[in-house]
Amino acid sequence: APERVCMDCYSPTNSVVDAMWRIYERKLRPMEAQYKFTDFYSPLLRKSDFEAKPQVLLLGQYSVGKTSFIKYLLERDFPGIRIGPEPTTDRFVAIMKGNEDRVVPGNALSVDATKPFHGVDKFGTGFLSKFESSECDAPILDNVTFIDTPGVLSGQKQRIGRSYDFTETIGWFADKSDLILLLFDAHKLDISDEFQSAIQALKGHDDKIRVVLNKADTITTQQLMRVYGALMWSLGKVFNTPETVRVYIGSFWSQPYQNAENEELFAAEQADLLRDLYELPRNSVVRRVNDLVKRARLLRVHTAVISHLKKNMPSVFGKQKAQTKMIDGLAEIFLDVHREFGYPVGDFPPVETMQAGLLDRDFTKFPRLDESMMKALDTVLTTDLTQIMNKVTPPSTDTPSAPTP
Amino acid sequence: APERVCMDCYSPTNSVVDAMWRIYERKLRPMEAQYKFTDFYSPLLRKSDFEAKPQVLLLGQYSVGKTSFIKYLLERDFPGIRIGPEPTTDRFVAIMKGNEDRVVPGNALSVDATKPFHGVDKFGTGFLSKFESSECDAPILDNVTFIDTPGVLSGQKQRIGRSYDFTETIGWFADKSDLILLLFDAHKLDISDEFQSAIQALKGHDDKIRVVLNKADTITTQQLMRVYGALMWSLGKVFNTPETVRVYIGSFWSQPYQNAENEELFAAEQADLLRDLYELPRNSVVRRVNDLVKRARLLRVHTAVISHLKKNMPSVFGKQKAQTKMIDGLAEIFLDVHREFGYPVGDFPPVETMQAGLLDRDFTKFPRLDESMMKALDTVLTTDLTQIMNKVTPPSTDTPSAPTP
Ligand SMILES: Nc1ncnc2c1ncn2[C@@H]1O[C@H](COP(=O)(O)OP(=O)(O)OP(=O)(O)O)[C@@H](O)[C@H]1O
Ligand SMILES: Nc1ncnc2c1ncn2[C@@H]1O[C@H](COP(=O)(O)OP(=O)(O)OP(=O)(O)O)[C@@H](O)[C@H]1O
Ligand SMILES: [Mg+2]
Ligand SMILES: [Mg+2]
Repeated sequence: APERVCMDCYSPTNSVVDAMWRIYERKLRPMEAQYKFTDFYSPLLRKSDFEAKPQVLLLGQYSVGKTSFIKYLLERDFPGIRIGPEPTTDRFVAIMKGNEDRVVPGNALSVDATKPFHGVDKFGTGFLSKFESSECDAPILDNVTFIDTPGVLSGQKQRIGRSYDFTETIGWFADKSDLILLLFDAHKLDISDEFQSAIQALKGHDDKIRVVLNKADTITTQQLMRVYGALMWSLGKVFNTPETVRVYIGSFWSQPYQNAENEELFAAEQADLLRDLYELPRNSVVRRVNDLVKRARLLRVHTAVISHLKKNMPSVFGKQKAQTKMIDGLAEIFLDVHREFGYPVGDFPPVETMQAGLLDRDFTKFPRLDESMMKALDTVLTTDLTQIMNKVTPPSTDTPSAPTP
Repeated sequence: APERVCMDCYSPTNSVVDAMWRIYERKLRPMEAQYKFTDFYSPLLRKSDFEAKPQVLLLGQYSVGKTSFIKYLLERDFPGIRIGPEPTTDRFVAIMKGNEDRVVPGNALSVDATKPFHGVDKFGTGFLSKFESSECDAPILDNVTFIDTPGVLSGQKQRIGRSYDFTETIGWFADKSDLILLLFDAHKLDISDEFQSAIQALKGHDDKIRVVLNKADTITTQQLMRVYGALMWSLGKVFNTPETVRVYIGSFWSQPYQNAENEELFAAEQADLLRDLYELPRNSVVRRVNDLVKRARLLRVHTAVISHLKKNMPSVFGKQKAQTKMIDGLAEIFLDVHREFGYPVGDFPPVETMQAGLLDRDFTKFPRLDESMMKALDTVLTTDLTQIMNKVTPPSTDTPSAPTP
């Protein structure tokens, strides 16, 4: 198959990234600003969001080897690295490409327009003081950015001493990530209630999740089979899908294997995982075009609803009452807009999300429907974004299914 | 640890089997007959039930290698054996010790007082024509009897053409078995809805269930890990317990391994399974004493309830009405008996079971409470059976748990 997407997809000069950015900047962003899109859903995007490398999020109980795993892939230490048998990593660390080694603290990171982290300030300084980037040079960082995280602790220890909501921040990073690796220690398998609820917070990202059963060489093969079996037994219940999650079994650091019996298996598993990592850019660009399409469709219904609310406001008396009535009856209004414009029901946001955004606003200040802007947005969806999507996804190789007798 | 239970526990001359039988025959059986115990719960026991060897039930989709597995353990063909890639075994076969090779058909088996199968006639001739024993000589048959079963088929095929209720018969054999092996084919993993409901029918026998992942040598190690993982993922949901079920991974026939990469693992797993089989007699005798204790306790409350019903019948008028009232209020009567005699609530049968047995009976014909019989039964429980239990279970090695601060 021809390489449709280059390996340096995320360089500012790449045509796909560039095209997405141009569409967003010229056609979507002005409309998002005008119709207060960001007050309801998520902040305006920046160029850095488009240029950001695919992101890999690492999660696991403490000491499972998350930091060692990153070091192994980098084939070097990264600035500020700490590895040890006790809980060591005490913050979120974005390990990313940099020409010289340096650590940038969270507060600086969140205001750096060239970095895709401007959204984290919503977690407050309590979080920003526990967030930093570690920049350095390593071949794999041309393709991906890693997010190292503090190990999940069990019970009381987890809850005290954290100055931010762990599950919530995990959710934010998961949303921005292309791959989420859940690490487990074969030698000390533990799925605490805390980690289980962290996994549950990843609902909706199932397709990004992979599991790593690390330190698999520290036990006998029979023990490994029992541990691996117990892991799948439990994960099946946590995920509750019929499809299994992919588990990579091995020892992901540069030391020789303690028990070399399964050398070949581990090598094959590690090769598979590396291949997955190297294929990330290709898959990630598709995902981002897809996300942009979703954003444009949401913007379209949002605009229609906002201008519908504006249009139905009384001109003189009873404004407050009319607003309250419309907020309460928002589901009905969604249906009206759906019928009037024919936008798919699936494009609409959850009623509660929009209701929350509408509280304490003056609907009379909402803009009217700008027909030409709407037309331009339709063209973005039907033409511009479709063209980009075709460029990044290879033509379908599905054979038509045989007729069932 | 000293061998408290001999390997030939189930020979008629064994002292434990003999002691159980004597207690049952002299003290329990007459009482069971007098108080119609068998009309409510299960048939009278025979000497053959006590002497029966521990029983291993094999279940699985068709062609997973159930019959080949038995042949492998016997190290020989058994009479009537059929092995093949299509659905072959079309009946339940009890493979058991015999001095000469022969096949005994189901109808004859069910009336043979020396065999523990007199209970199967309740499944009718439709089942009896699909049941037989295969007797032959093989060392392992000194310790266990195997029940080979027809493979579970998926969908329509399963339901048509079976002249008996498969799940119900499975339940009966499971009840009489000491070990239930669920076989899966690593090369063609399949957990059909039918097999899933067969597994569900084994509820309450969880502790007897083991899983065999067979033909594990026919695929690569990486494939094996995926298949095994998928199996555990699914089984965890079917069983719905936090504890995993033990899975033996290997290739259970006498052919050399196709893929010898995991030779050592398979050998270790096969050795574990064999050890489990050879330890069955020891564990099984404990289970049987336990079953007899349960039966005696049930008999005790049954007798108390029956004579309570008798006592409360009017002597002349309104018999039918009184009976109906007592059947409807049976839960209340259980409580009365519990309060009067102090028998544990857990000893009582499900209210519905006893209600079903009481329909269309004449309570005035029930016997009164026989105080001396009850006293003898109490002695059986407090002395005779306790002595036997102590004989077969080694003294507890539990250390007292440390006080929690
Ligand atoms: N593949 C491996 N096999 C055996 N031991 C390992 C492996 N990887 C890491 N370790 C050891 O496990 C311990 C924990 O490693 P590391 O600090 O990388 O874990 P972590 O998941 O980042 O922990 P934390 O959550 O505390 O940050 C260290 O002592 C490390 O040497
Ligand atoms: N360990 C094994 N490895 C590979 N093939 C095997 C193994 N055991 C059995 N087979 C093959 O699988 C097929 C089915 O075997 P067998 O008849 O023993 O299965 P079964 O479970 O008893 O099937 P059925 O439910 O139809 O009675 C046969 O062709 C047999 O040679
Ligand atoms: Mg760490
Ligand atoms: Mg068979």
